[in-house]
Amino acid sequence: MNIKVFTTTKQVQDYAAHCKKNGQTIGLVPTMGALHDGHLSLMKVAKEKSDIVIASVFVNPVQFGPNEDYDAYPRQFEADCQKLDQAGVDAVFHPAKEEMYPEGYTTYVTVDGSLTNRLCGASRPGHFRGVATVVTKLLNITQADRAFFGQKDAQQVVVISRFVRDLNMTAQIEIVPIFRSANGLALSSRNVYLSAQEKNKALVLSQSLQLAKEAYKKGEVKTSQLKNIVRAHLQTEAAATVEYVELYSFPDLNEIDEVRGKALLAIAVKIGTVRLIDNIILEA
Amino acid sequence: MNIKVFTTTKQVQDYAAHCKKNGQTIGLVPTMGALHDGHLSLMKVAKEKSDIVIASVFVNPVQFGPNEDYDAYPRQFEADCQKLDQAGVDAVFHPAKEEMYPEGYTTYVTVDGSLTNRLCGASRPGHFRGVATVVTKLLNITQADRAFFGQKDAQQVVVISRFVRDLNMTAQIEIVPIFRSANGLALSSRNVYLSAQEKNKALVLSQSLQLAKEAYKKGEVKTSQLKNIVRAHLQTEAAATVEYVELYSFPDLNEIDEVRGKALLAIAVKIGTVRLIDNIILEA
Repeated sequence: MNIKVFTTTKQVQDYAAHCKKNGQTIGLVPTMGALHDGHLSLMKVAKEKSDIVIASVFVNPVQFGPNEDYDAYPRQFEADCQKLDQAGVDAVFHPAKEEMYPEGYTTYVTVDGSLTNRLCGASRPGHFRGVATVVTKLLNITQADRAFFGQKDAQQVVVISRFVRDLNMTAQIEIVPIFRSANGLALSSRNVYLSAQEKNKALVLSQSLQLAKEAYKKGEVKTSQLKNIVRAHLQTEAAATVEYVELYSFPDLNEIDEVRGKALLAIAVKIGTVRLIDNIILEA
Repeated sequence: MNIKVFTTTKQVQDYAAHCKKNGQTIGLVPTMGALHDGHLSLMKVAKEKSDIVIASVFVNPVQFGPNEDYDAYPRQFEADCQKLDQAGVDAVFHPAKEEMYPEGYTTYVTVDGSLTNRLCGASRPGHFRGVATVVTKLLNITQADRAFFGQKDAQQVVVISRFVRDLNMTAQIEIVPIFRSANGLALSSRNVYLSAQEKNKALVLSQSLQLAKEAYKKGEVKTSQLKNIVRAHLQTEAAATVEYVELYSFPDLNEIDEVRGKALLAIAVKIGTVRLIDNIILEA
């Protein structure tokens, strides 16, 4: 393998400084590992837009709630490394949690208000504080010129874009479209929790969004109607438990009665015990 | 005047990028203006340690509580500019509050725990969140290699050093000793609120710290005794109202029964209606 494997911030800082000195631009792709083709599509875009690509593989404890799946979250670093190497990624940062949050660690980046208290923020208090904090650290450690995130985590992308702007950070945040399997399922590391049968049932998520998109294209702009279309289709699947179906302006996540500009239609649904999210952007 | 005056983040970012390209190091001295010789001592150290010095003059609204003196805080930008120019400072950043906190601004940097909930943090909730947020922004905007702060605001220095380390920011935080008038009064922008008579009464602050230091040098290490010495002397001045007299380990601000390593003896006292702070480091 050609990929450089770093476990300390110092190693990454030295490497980044060396690259910068050579006039190379750095692209960062933060991940929690358990890499799938969705991640690899991010690496591909990062390589096109950067001289050097650094991926991080770090299951970030501070973005998990006390009853969430931090311990159970899939970890498969060696397989991840091989995939990253084959994708031509230059370096991977794989720190222990004590390297990122040493004893006495007390600093957090918070984004207040409607960006974080709705959608996934409503059921996952503290989640976006954890995301904003770790991404701030990773951007500072890697000195990245650009950082790449998937549209799959739509609210995450909005939150990150906001704090990077608010804190006058220099990195450019790049958003990469959702990567779906041929039958429409949005790729997610949590899909490994699904049985083959559940994977089929999970298609109800993307199908319901498609139905709403078609209705929108035919002229339906009412928020309540579009949400009803999604809910009605989700209810056809007995294994599906809806957490939310929401439609907000994008990227400000304000409540809207009708879709006029860009809007985010986002859903969180449990298939059996596995929580999945999906979304689509509606625009004129 | 030779000093460059910038009011937008874009101007500062362009200037900083230009300096960096020339291989020059940048020193940042954040201030709220109303500059006195204490500030100028910071500029002097910054000049010695940096190729380019950028000062900021910005009365930061988010570090003031609702009943504090944000509106009344002394503002004298033209006089400040002349002092900075004479001190050889290269550029001053003097943004409007809308430039720093535009509509929709929602991101804050917080340092939790004992560093911020005691001393001035106890009576000024949210104060250090405001400080951490504005300093993060200023460090990012100026791309400073080093930033210079006075030991006068001891807790501020501790909080800034902590979040810079926690968030893996690259700037070096440099601490400059308290600048005192010949009779011992720690210089502060809020001293302009004091009458000549009150300035004399305010000497009780530095005197009380000196008495404790002398006792410490003679072997007194008990926290309670050292604090008693300070309180007893402060009580000799009828115009003085004590807010706190505290002695903590430095820089972690933990409670201690005895001074063994470095310790911070810090006081906040009102002289009439003017709140003043002062401190001294005790060490072996």
